[in-house]
Amino acid sequence: MKLNLPVSVDWKDGKLFFLDQTALPLEEIIEEQETVKQVWDSIKVLKVRGAPALGVAGAYGLLVGVKPHVGLEPAEFLLKIQEIAAYLDSSRPTAVNLGWALRRMVAYSGALGEKTTAQIFRLLEAEAIKIHQEDIACSHAIAATGEPLIKEGMGVLTHCNAGHLAVSQLGTALAPMYAAHAKGKKFKVYADETRPLLQGARLTAWELKKAGLDVTLICDNMAASMMAQGLIQLVIVGADRIVANGDAANKIGTLGVAILAKYFGIPVYVAAPFSTIDLNTKEGKDIEIEERGAKEVTHFGARQTGPTGVQVRNPAFDVTNHELIAGFITDRGLIKAPFGDKLTQTFS
Amino acid sequence: MKLNLPVSVDWKDGKLFFLDQTALPLEEIIEEQETVKQVWDSIKVLKVRGAPALGVAGAYGLLVGVKPHVGLEPAEFLLKIQEIAAYLDSSRPTAVNLGWALRRMVAYSGALGEKTTAQIFRLLEAEAIKIHQEDIACSHAIAATGEPLIKEGMGVLTHCNAGHLAVSQLGTALAPMYAAHAKGKKFKVYADETRPLLQGARLTAWELKKAGLDVTLICDNMAASMMAQGLIQLVIVGADRIVANGDAANKIGTLGVAILAKYFGIPVYVAAPFSTIDLNTKEGKDIEIEERGAKEVTHFGARQTGPTGVQVRNPAFDVTNHELIAGFITDRGLIKAPFGDKLTQTFS
Repeated sequence: MKLNLPVSVDWKDGKLFFLDQTALPLEEIIEEQETVKQVWDSIKVLKVRGAPALGVAGAYGLLVGVKPHVGLEPAEFLLKIQEIAAYLDSSRPTAVNLGWALRRMVAYSGALGEKTTAQIFRLLEAEAIKIHQEDIACSHAIAATGEPLIKEGMGVLTHCNAGHLAVSQLGTALAPMYAAHAKGKKFKVYADETRPLLQGARLTAWELKKAGLDVTLICDNMAASMMAQGLIQLVIVGADRIVANGDAANKIGTLGVAILAKYFGIPVYVAAPFSTIDLNTKEGKDIEIEERGAKEVTHFGARQTGPTGVQVRNPAFDVTNHELIAGFITDRGLIKAPFGDKLTQTFS
Repeated sequence: MKLNLPVSVDWKDGKLFFLDQTALPLEEIIEEQETVKQVWDSIKVLKVRGAPALGVAGAYGLLVGVKPHVGLEPAEFLLKIQEIAAYLDSSRPTAVNLGWALRRMVAYSGALGEKTTAQIFRLLEAEAIKIHQEDIACSHAIAATGEPLIKEGMGVLTHCNAGHLAVSQLGTALAPMYAAHAKGKKFKVYADETRPLLQGARLTAWELKKAGLDVTLICDNMAASMMAQGLIQLVIVGADRIVANGDAANKIGTLGVAILAKYFGIPVYVAAPFSTIDLNTKEGKDIEIEERGAKEVTHFGARQTGPTGVQVRNPAFDVTNHELIAGFITDRGLIKAPFGDKLTQTFS
């Protein structure tokens, strides 16, 4: 399956390229990342975002950072790798996959034994490409798992962007849609705009439309109306973290969508790779939720829309109770409710 | 009860003033309406909005329009009144209260019998002031009906702006909150920002904050999270139209809030004056819903946020089933569920 879409992270002939997601949906800018400082800035300002994409970006970004140091003594070079990895990790401290990929690269370099720095660099490059390929394989597995859930003529609602732009290819929540579309199934996708940062409007609507899918953009508060009109038969969302009992943290607004879907008898599926499953946490109430700044809610771009100094709540995520979830679409197959200890059995 | 807030529509010494709501929450501009063309434009661009406020604005706007014609023959003057009323009504054809107030003024002028044009004008002015006073009395009655529902320490969620800015004073959904605040009760209000036009952020948060209430602004998709955190004990919203069985049309997103509230066991009250009750319509499914332009969803002010040419749905209202409503807070008392034919008994 090949999508008519630029990839979010690309490594070509030893050069790193990011699709600048902050310029979407107005402009498609592919930007070469020439220095590690530039990579750090690009991650910081969300030119590249999405948990799996950040892992891949971090692994390649490390290569950009260490390449100028290939002339060092091997021991110094290994220290340089650690130093640059720590620096890159500081660009988004809460991005789990970024830290994970960088730690994997550092651990790998440390276990190589006696090698020249040129050899170390080549092996590190191969490891980064492996991380990338694993992420691609994961999305294709999720696509294959979820595709049969989408039937001809359905309306499928999604929230935020768990798509091609958030991973190496296809996405998580959007992967089954791309697969169903590739099979020739006709169906409609409804994309919540996803306030406050509008990932649904800026990214999901853009990538689905560009890939040729039938997508309709709505404000978050219109989902209930679409369901009441009988336009939605399926909800697929992504997840930032799924805990042992099946409770799932995802972008703010997901819980509301799941409650509406339950009211209207519409099944909700959560699509996610194995790396999202956190078996060390038992229940959703144990997940700490990041509270973001007030300005995202009181302003829109540079324009102020709320009154000066008003109190604001801005939780970045909410937790959907597992009782609202019909199943998990994973790279290890479909896990259907009731979950019991199925997640532990599948992923431990 | 006196609020520390400018009124949306004011008639002083024969002059008409609107608070320019398009400049809120950044600037408080009180603008004299010197010509009927200016009134028409002000209504058209939503400098004044809200069903009851539009009725009052229309009645006074008619005075502004006919005043220069007081020198005409009485018969010509009466025709002029009809002509200017029709012109003003065309500024917002779907605003029921605007048309209602203008028809009332025209009918009144036609039934005056032999009078000089100066006498007709003075009597018309008295009728406009009467419409205004009736609207004020209505909001105070709604405030008194709803105030006891708000208990010390509660969190109260509202959607859109059914407040002081939408009527002559106090509001409908916000009237009980102002009354409870005046009684010294301490409680928190959560205001949904209400996409796409952000009446919650721009207007509700502004007026509650300015009047000294404890208000917190949230994005629409955060309501479920606030409820899950146990922060909301009561929902009060307004209505654009309530039909015989209790189904209520209100700003898009109200249905979603009501479904979430039901899931969390939180009562939903709809505050509305008698003029909102439409006993000629039996059920909510018979209400036609206005679909507005795509640009409200794909753009934010001048800034484009959705992809060019994407399909959009933008219903202005949704219908909340009466089974989701705990009661109606009206100027004729509290009407509690189950409704049966209580609305017909109270309002026919």
